[in-house]
Amino acid sequence: MNNFEFCNPVKVVFGKGSIARLSALIPEGSKVLMVYGGGSIKKNGIYGQVTKALEGFEVTEFPGIEANPHYETCMKAVEVVKEKKIDFLLAVGGGSVIDATKFIAVSVGFEGDPWDILSKGGEIKNALPLGTVLTLAATGSEMNERSVISRVSTCEKLNFASPLVFPKFSVLDPEVTYSLPVRQVANGVVDSFIHVVEQYLTYPVNAKVQDAFSEGLMRVIHEEGLKVLDNPNDYDIRANLMWAATNALNVWIGQGVPQDWSSHRMGYALTAQFGLDHAQTLAILLPGVMTYMFKEKQVKLARMGEVVFGITDGTEEERARKAIVACEDFFRRMGLKTRLGECGIAEKDLDALAAPVDKQGWKLGEHHNIDSRMAREIMALRL
Amino acid sequence: MNNFEFCNPVKVVFGKGSIARLSALIPEGSKVLMVYGGGSIKKNGIYGQVTKALEGFEVTEFPGIEANPHYETCMKAVEVVKEKKIDFLLAVGGGSVIDATKFIAVSVGFEGDPWDILSKGGEIKNALPLGTVLTLAATGSEMNERSVISRVSTCEKLNFASPLVFPKFSVLDPEVTYSLPVRQVANGVVDSFIHVVEQYLTYPVNAKVQDAFSEGLMRVIHEEGLKVLDNPNDYDIRANLMWAATNALNVWIGQGVPQDWSSHRMGYALTAQFGLDHAQTLAILLPGVMTYMFKEKQVKLARMGEVVFGITDGTEEERARKAIVACEDFFRRMGLKTRLGECGIAEKDLDALAAPVDKQGWKLGEHHNIDSRMAREIMALRL
Repeated sequence: MNNFEFCNPVKVVFGKGSIARLSALIPEGSKVLMVYGGGSIKKNGIYGQVTKALEGFEVTEFPGIEANPHYETCMKAVEVVKEKKIDFLLAVGGGSVIDATKFIAVSVGFEGDPWDILSKGGEIKNALPLGTVLTLAATGSEMNERSVISRVSTCEKLNFASPLVFPKFSVLDPEVTYSLPVRQVANGVVDSFIHVVEQYLTYPVNAKVQDAFSEGLMRVIHEEGLKVLDNPNDYDIRANLMWAATNALNVWIGQGVPQDWSSHRMGYALTAQFGLDHAQTLAILLPGVMTYMFKEKQVKLARMGEVVFGITDGTEEERARKAIVACEDFFRRMGLKTRLGECGIAEKDLDALAAPVDKQGWKLGEHHNIDSRMAREIMALRL
Repeated sequence: MNNFEFCNPVKVVFGKGSIARLSALIPEGSKVLMVYGGGSIKKNGIYGQVTKALEGFEVTEFPGIEANPHYETCMKAVEVVKEKKIDFLLAVGGGSVIDATKFIAVSVGFEGDPWDILSKGGEIKNALPLGTVLTLAATGSEMNERSVISRVSTCEKLNFASPLVFPKFSVLDPEVTYSLPVRQVANGVVDSFIHVVEQYLTYPVNAKVQDAFSEGLMRVIHEEGLKVLDNPNDYDIRANLMWAATNALNVWIGQGVPQDWSSHRMGYALTAQFGLDHAQTLAILLPGVMTYMFKEKQVKLARMGEVVFGITDGTEEERARKAIVACEDFFRRMGLKTRLGECGIAEKDLDALAAPVDKQGWKLGEHHNIDSRMAREIMALRL
């Protein structure tokens, strides 16, 4: 096991009816900016529950956060924060709304262009406090210190992390996910599954607790994921998926172990340049990474095949190969595509898609050796 | 899954050489009370590492915390804190030292007799900040808000919990556990295993993440526990046991599920009246609880038998029975006794041992139905 330092101070309020707890969670007298997305919360009753719980607070609304939230939109929110003297941010949404809210939180007091936080690792000295009401089990942003933001004008998608953007609290009511569109649910299942894979599927360092937790999460997400589309109103399935997705990226299972994240980083360009859903980029790229880095990942691929997919026949290499097939099959059963060609992306596009790896100076993967040439080769495996 | 609220703000600093990080973890200029036990840390080099890391701080030492720490000793420490105007407490030890330090932290500013915190649920309004250097993988106190204290004059042992006593940080260096006596290591293995059992072995509520985590922890503790006595200087085994023990009671796996804790509560009297080690009380009582509450626990006993001990043959009832035998066998292989008679406790002692259940008004177990009569019957199964 590798050395690590860990602290996650997020207060989780989990379960049916928990949105009503909001008024006790936000500091009394706060001027709240309620940040949300395209307005689906007005159709499914969440908006009503939240505004009722916020009675007595001075609330300004900021709707319109996009999937893969835009830098440009966040900057408009920053203006509102300054104008209205907002002192608490409440994200009501999925990972995009929460990520946007985190970026708004650090941009308000940032000296210079906040884009530098993403592109140049600009130092974050302060942040507005924020809380979340989660409406989609997927990214884990509700219980971590990370955020990913896209800039439309330059077709870039970049991330940052700071302990200052841990939410003060996150309200997780599985019932609010009943009415989600199938595509978002399926994306959430695949996204959270691959978050675990990124922290698990590297080389063994004999970290048994972390491995057991990761294997448990993959099993649960696989098992419940295959059920949820046919049983959208099953509380237990929704609750298990929601809590699994939070645990998949609250940075707990990744302590003391090597991590990969190459599928994520490479996937950013697929979203920024072609508008693919985040989970869709991962479902395409992960089998490529597994195949390209097969030798490095073989031991844990075989183990994953056994404990997640029940693959017990064959040599270690054979079981590891079958695990890749089982993963891709899982993503397809969830309704996602697993090939670039299915999304209208061709060989001619690969140079531009691999270019950000060089531009950002990334060396990806647990061995920090995947450069833009290798990234292009991985993508070529997925045409 | 049941509703829950959860927050654990402890910063964990884990790994080889991490004691050196102390100087950066304690607020600059703090007047530190270094609380420790019987002085073993002076023989194994930990004392030297800690005092070196504390250079530049004003440090007062308070040695002499006992196993099952005494209220009376803690009160002496409170006097020292007031006299020396201490503003930070550093526990260097195992669960007993940490529990004592937590009680000292809340006693300093408590109005009235601090014993009321334990015996009457006296309200805790403030606490001195504390950090820990863990020297024994066992209780999880390094990452929770709980403490158990004994009062010698009345042969009582009671617990309290408050979010104010979460350590600000805990330093976990597995290497410091190499030199521990066999008995303490074995106790730690059994103690941490049973912490998981108390949160797992109830009735199913379809909480798949929590169950998977608990099952993983039991597997790891069982597997590594059987190895550690023969391989005391194996870093990976020590690291896995240390991280497993922390996770066994950092209150994470128990969120949203029913919990038992009857073996713990009943065991307090065995320690208070007969001086048995805490883990020893659990090793004796748990098989009794499993047998007495067999019907209520059968489903999860069978599951535990399968995933922890590899018991796959027979009906559910048969597998569940075998799991009880396997548990007791595990404790014996770790060198612990599993019968009251082996510890000089006889039928005539049972009334007094069961009496605290009534005195404290406890209704124990996940069904809140174990009173002193039933407690006595459980103990009678273990003569």
